[in-house]
Amino acid sequence: MSAPDKIAIIGTGLVGGGWAIVFARGGCSVSLWDADPDAAPRALAVIRDRVADLRDAGLVDDPEAILSRIGLAGSLAEALDDALYVQESVLERVDIKAALMTRIDAAIGPGTWVGSSSSGLAASLYTGHVGCRARCLVAHPVNPPYLAPIVELVPAPWTAPETVEGVRALMRRVGQSPVEMTREAEGFILNRLQGVLLMEAWRLVEDGLASVADIDLTVSQGLGLRWAFMGPFETIDLNAPGGIADYAARLGELYRRIAASTTEQRPWSAALIDRVEAERRTVLPADQLADRSAWRDRRMMALVRHKRDRDAAERETR
Amino acid sequence: MSAPDKIAIIGTGLVGGGWAIVFARGGCSVSLWDADPDAAPRALAVIRDRVADLRDAGLVDDPEAILSRIGLAGSLAEALDDALYVQESVLERVDIKAALMTRIDAAIGPGTWVGSSSSGLAASLYTGHVGCRARCLVAHPVNPPYLAPIVELVPAPWTAPETVEGVRALMRRVGQSPVEMTREAEGFILNRLQGVLLMEAWRLVEDGLASVADIDLTVSQGLGLRWAFMGPFETIDLNAPGGIADYAARLGELYRRIAASTTEQRPWSAALIDRVEAERRTVLPADQLADRSAWRDRRMMALVRHKRDRDAAERETR
Repeated sequence: MSAPDKIAIIGTGLVGGGWAIVFARGGCSVSLWDADPDAAPRALAVIRDRVADLRDAGLVDDPEAILSRIGLAGSLAEALDDALYVQESVLERVDIKAALMTRIDAAIGPGTWVGSSSSGLAASLYTGHVGCRARCLVAHPVNPPYLAPIVELVPAPWTAPETVEGVRALMRRVGQSPVEMTREAEGFILNRLQGVLLMEAWRLVEDGLASVADIDLTVSQGLGLRWAFMGPFETIDLNAPGGIADYAARLGELYRRIAASTTEQRPWSAALIDRVEAERRTVLPADQLADRSAWRDRRMMALVRHKRDRDAAERETR
Repeated sequence: MSAPDKIAIIGTGLVGGGWAIVFARGGCSVSLWDADPDAAPRALAVIRDRVADLRDAGLVDDPEAILSRIGLAGSLAEALDDALYVQESVLERVDIKAALMTRIDAAIGPGTWVGSSSSGLAASLYTGHVGCRARCLVAHPVNPPYLAPIVELVPAPWTAPETVEGVRALMRRVGQSPVEMTREAEGFILNRLQGVLLMEAWRLVEDGLASVADIDLTVSQGLGLRWAFMGPFETIDLNAPGGIADYAARLGELYRRIAASTTEQRPWSAALIDRVEAERRTVLPADQLADRSAWRDRRMMALVRHKRDRDAAERETR
């Protein structure tokens, strides 16, 4: 048996800690480093709690084995030494990421790939100046990555195709579901899709057409019941007897009319934000946000477990 | 014990048949009528199969009791006689719906409400000419309504507030989750939200930014994992430590940039539809569409069962 792949996690906040679980669960050896010397030990304690939650939900069998593969690096150089892959999850600021890339570039070997967890900053903004830039890309997770398997791989103009291939294969190996953009675009795939839906949701509230609670129900008791296991294209492909072209023929005109009524640009105004915040706080007081987030995580674990069990049952009866 | 509420189902295709299950499951007495004399008996056979599926999925206990509450009317007048509520699910054409409304208006009592299942036609287009128009509205379900509880209630300008209140209470009584628009808008809530997301999905494909399969994965393995049990507002409310206003402060600028890049109107072109259809047919040949739709229904039943079990477990530990 060969030695496990080594992964360096640079920046150990919520996102970096989540990545550590993904890679250690996938059998890799994980080395944590953060510019704040207190951050990585703190992350390790959080990781321990999350892995225990995953065991309680029936999603991992051997918590200790996972934890045994995660270690603290004494320095950035030690974390990067001999790493196959670096997952960078530092603060979402171009200057900070660019400075970190300079340091990473000076320390990594010639075969190491570097992925950034950035949700809003394309890799071209902070990797153009480094020698390893062909081996850099964005690898954007959904939080928490150990529950939501999607990873968006977004190359900069100078990212080598082999880098995308290598990181894609690594992500699959550790159980994630990588998706790819062919080039950079604001918000990548996930936040573009979420963004247009949110934009319309805010508009419906601003225009007094529906309440925040009713818009949420329309998704959680309607659209989301299909989108939890099929994407939007498969959904409409199955919503007309003849498939997606048939659907477009039947409903394209309705969607054209909807689109025509959603062209106006609307920034989320301060007054509108206040209004939605106020409606949310009547159903969920601010001091219950943390409890409700913990509930969200438990429900997500149960849903992931449910989907996994169904997939397994279907494979058996095939 | 008083007599059960009588519901008239007019138009017994897929949608009308689904409604029959909802109301009969909810304890109402259901009378089916369709202009095509063969349609209602055919619907009854489909209803029998669907109720058996629901029993197999553990979602109904007593299929025979449900079926015993559904009957065929010999005429439109017989179906409407003494009905508390009429659910109209005929073909999506203004002239057909308007002509039917004239006939319904002539036959119903003074307290009967009339809901239309229309997904694209507002009630103001075909109810303005009838005496009962204050008791008419759109009650738009998601297919199939016995699995997706959302019903969109959309009043015409002349719909009485008491009508909305009465139909909302009835829908809740039979286990649905009614949501309300304050006035008519193209596509109502659900299809507006789905429409803007689809519009962006088609755009990503047309611009060569991502594949149909990867866009579907981004939803089914990412966004949809939360939207299956929380709406978009609750999702972002829990995605920043300080709630939704905090989220808007952190990410509003990213979403503003995304919005700025999605303003251009793009009808779904024939070439684009061909391309997406072709990509879908490589993963799902046309002759497997029906099988996959049956799979979708089984997965949805399992998901609904999963959500119900989790809700019950949470109530117990509270």
